[in-house]
Amino acid sequence: MKQDFKPLLAKVEHAYHIIGKKWVNLIIHVLMEGPKRFSELHAIIPDLSKRMLNERLKELEECGLLNRVVIPDRPVKTEYSLTEKGQELGAALCHVEVWAMKWL
Amino acid sequence: MKQDFKPLLAKVEHAYHIIGKKWVNLIIHVLMEGPKRFSELHAIIPDLSKRMLNERLKELEECGLLNRVVIPDRPVKTEYSLTEKGQELGAALCHVEVWAMKWL
Repeated sequence: MKQDFKPLLAKVEHAYHIIGKKWVNLIIHVLMEGPKRFSELHAIIPDLSKRMLNERLKELEECGLLNRVVIPDRPVKTEYSLTEKGQELGAALCHVEVWAMKWL
Repeated sequence: MKQDFKPLLAKVEHAYHIIGKKWVNLIIHVLMEGPKRFSELHAIIPDLSKRMLNERLKELEECGLLNRVVIPDRPVKTEYSLTEKGQELGAALCHVEVWAMKWL
């Protein structure tokens, strides 16, 4: 019985390339509660610098996991929310979080 | 609303330190089907060198995710199986695999 694991392995590695980065899991975890503005995200995760938060949000947007909406108020606001792809990743990651909280 | 994410973040990062390593996810995936001998694991994942397989199995055993049983046959055989901790991680990782296969 030799199943071709190459497709699974390549995709899983791609997934971990995204979610393995520091803060990504936590940003997705927070956005699972609903859309947040940049300032709100930064307030909720104070240890995460604005520069790093910006970088991670940009990466997650490029991966199609986040929507970014600019609200033309004064001052201008930017709101982030999970796409369907992002929501489903958040749901999957929740299982890993539960495991980690139980076993580590 | 500021929740202390430090415990969650530390544990989740620890989890990704384990599962982010190449081949770990696949080894656990294969062992979710049941105990396997070293030779069987190597046959199922041919791209994984014996040296690397050995290294990963040792790490997973040290993390408490694997049981290792030596069978005193001639020649001696070594059988690996997931502990309860390992089984639950495998179940959690399955959700990430399903997401990856669907979205990546």
